[in-house]
Amino acid sequence: MVKENNPNLVRDTGRRAVIALDAMGGDYAPLSVLKGAEIALKDNSDLKFKIFGHRDKVLPLLGNYKSVAEASEFIHTEESIANDEKPTTALRKAKNSSMFLSIDSVKHGEATAVVSSGNTGALMAISKLSLQTLPGIDRPAIGGLLPTEKGLCVMLDLGANILCDATNLFEFSIMGSSFAKTVLGKKSPSVGLLNVGEERNKGHEVLRSAAAMIEEGGADLNYIGFIEGSDICTGKVDVIVTDGFSGNIALKTAEGTAKFFANMFKSKLKSNIFGLIGLFIASPALLKLKKQLDPRNYNGAMLLGLNGIVVKSHGSADEVGFANAIKVAYKLSKNNINEHIMRDMVASGHSLETDEFLSEIEG
Amino acid sequence: MVKENNPNLVRDTGRRAVIALDAMGGDYAPLSVLKGAEIALKDNSDLKFKIFGHRDKVLPLLGNYKSVAEASEFIHTEESIANDEKPTTALRKAKNSSMFLSIDSVKHGEATAVVSSGNTGALMAISKLSLQTLPGIDRPAIGGLLPTEKGLCVMLDLGANILCDATNLFEFSIMGSSFAKTVLGKKSPSVGLLNVGEERNKGHEVLRSAAAMIEEGGADLNYIGFIEGSDICTGKVDVIVTDGFSGNIALKTAEGTAKFFANMFKSKLKSNIFGLIGLFIASPALLKLKKQLDPRNYNGAMLLGLNGIVVKSHGSADEVGFANAIKVAYKLSKNNINEHIMRDMVASGHSLETDEFLSEIEG
Repeated sequence: MVKENNPNLVRDTGRRAVIALDAMGGDYAPLSVLKGAEIALKDNSDLKFKIFGHRDKVLPLLGNYKSVAEASEFIHTEESIANDEKPTTALRKAKNSSMFLSIDSVKHGEATAVVSSGNTGALMAISKLSLQTLPGIDRPAIGGLLPTEKGLCVMLDLGANILCDATNLFEFSIMGSSFAKTVLGKKSPSVGLLNVGEERNKGHEVLRSAAAMIEEGGADLNYIGFIEGSDICTGKVDVIVTDGFSGNIALKTAEGTAKFFANMFKSKLKSNIFGLIGLFIASPALLKLKKQLDPRNYNGAMLLGLNGIVVKSHGSADEVGFANAIKVAYKLSKNNINEHIMRDMVASGHSLETDEFLSEIEG
Repeated sequence: MVKENNPNLVRDTGRRAVIALDAMGGDYAPLSVLKGAEIALKDNSDLKFKIFGHRDKVLPLLGNYKSVAEASEFIHTEESIANDEKPTTALRKAKNSSMFLSIDSVKHGEATAVVSSGNTGALMAISKLSLQTLPGIDRPAIGGLLPTEKGLCVMLDLGANILCDATNLFEFSIMGSSFAKTVLGKKSPSVGLLNVGEERNKGHEVLRSAAAMIEEGGADLNYIGFIEGSDICTGKVDVIVTDGFSGNIALKTAEGTAKFFANMFKSKLKSNIFGLIGLFIASPALLKLKKQLDPRNYNGAMLLGLNGIVVKSHGSADEVGFANAIKVAYKLSKNNINEHIMRDMVASGHSLETDEFLSEIEG
């Protein structure tokens, strides 16, 4: 189904997982990329990689990671895009960069997904230009994982779209639900719209229209209504849908509060001898907690709505974080997330342009 | 300066603190109100109260709080407004309610401020109708206190205005700065606009226009630029300005994350014998932390921008929380917050309607 000349067809993964790795993006690349690939291979031995990077930086290291070298094809790229580069500059020098070429390999069906710790703005800009959006999807959104009292949840949009209309939010709810199905293995993920209260009359017109679209649209969504900021961490829903402004604020506020709490906790305990002793004795239990809340364990956000799987790893991700992003790309590839999205779009009666796609996957 | 017939004049407190207490609002009223008044009196012996409530509920208890009885005037009110009452219903039966009559006493200059743990929507609706906004202020906002690594900060709007324009945000920055001066005693509080990044081109047009208004407006503000959700808890700024939608999401997300963290922490430690022992030994240090982060210690949000001081206490506030809300009302009264706001409005060249007010306070 890889037909790049027909944008109305959806790139298929063929249930394989061939992951294009941008080996030049992020603070610890290329080492974190190679080490991360080695970790991910241990859990998923059928993984294949295409590693894009500069030969002088990558090849001297690659020999140290035998399993990775065996599962990989290496592609030399002259350029790389800096973390602080503006998307416009990045686009100009894109053609020879590891980021562009790794995305390009998804476009041409040589890889089933790409993972990059590079510049988010550039990744989104190049991916949109190269892969384009899925048929019927207006705008891509960034969907990521967050820890809750019940496990992990999905939140989108985390910052790609500052202003959204009701249709965008409706499409986000379908894409987020598909993400939760394929990555978290939820059969019927519950979906909530982030608002300032649960009552139907709360919030602004865009939210109320989106709620009406989701309720009436016939989409096969387990929509439970509006949720509040305080519900994010309780695990009340599996998928939290919001615009990129509120999503970014909520995500960063949650991260900041967790850090604040951890800092206060440490400084209070360390200021007092009994606190120090208690800290020492309780440390195995606290290490478990630290591990459970470790952001590396839920690294790997997807640029949802593109006609191809693009996974964004955090810029400061180390090998453990990068391995997780690869695992996300693996699940998305093996479970064909974009097929899920298109099926749900068609079920919702929302997108008519997808008939051609559907007749193909059903026929 | 109390001239209710001239809305262009600002209600003055005369640097006194006569606090009208809605003794019927909130989950633990009237007991929390009377006990809270007693606590607040210990720190501020020049406090005076006007207690509004039903005689059958309040008078049997009042005798137990001698210092409060001596500092108070009691006013019987037939009605009270339920916590879940809609603002429209509340407005209909308002005239004889403890909430309406306590606000009314501010309107008539009999009290310098009102404190209520009752229904926020009703409190805002009645206050707006009764007190009206300050000259030149378009819309009131809810400004509250939050703990940070450096102490307390002010955030507004916490939910009164779902959609805001640049002028609203500009006015919020002046009001928030005045709040930080009068309640936190900051000489030149730093002000930041909540956004998805620090760069000037980030966010939407309303935010960029508001930033331009603040920078060019000549207001005497210590404006430092855009801040992110992750900066809220670090204490990077004293005043966080945002619309009521994002403010509400950020506040509730922070509260939810703190609760999540505390729950995870407790359950992890209690699941393990060493964790339990450590918890026991460290408990004095942990109690200190708990006290520092206790939401009761920063209870008391102001409905900023009204021509009269209205303080909203949390609906579930106990006596300690309510005492704090009274202390906020005390500081706002003694320091004449609305005079601060009007001076800063005039200094910003933003409001010309305030000339009459200014000539009065300066003459």
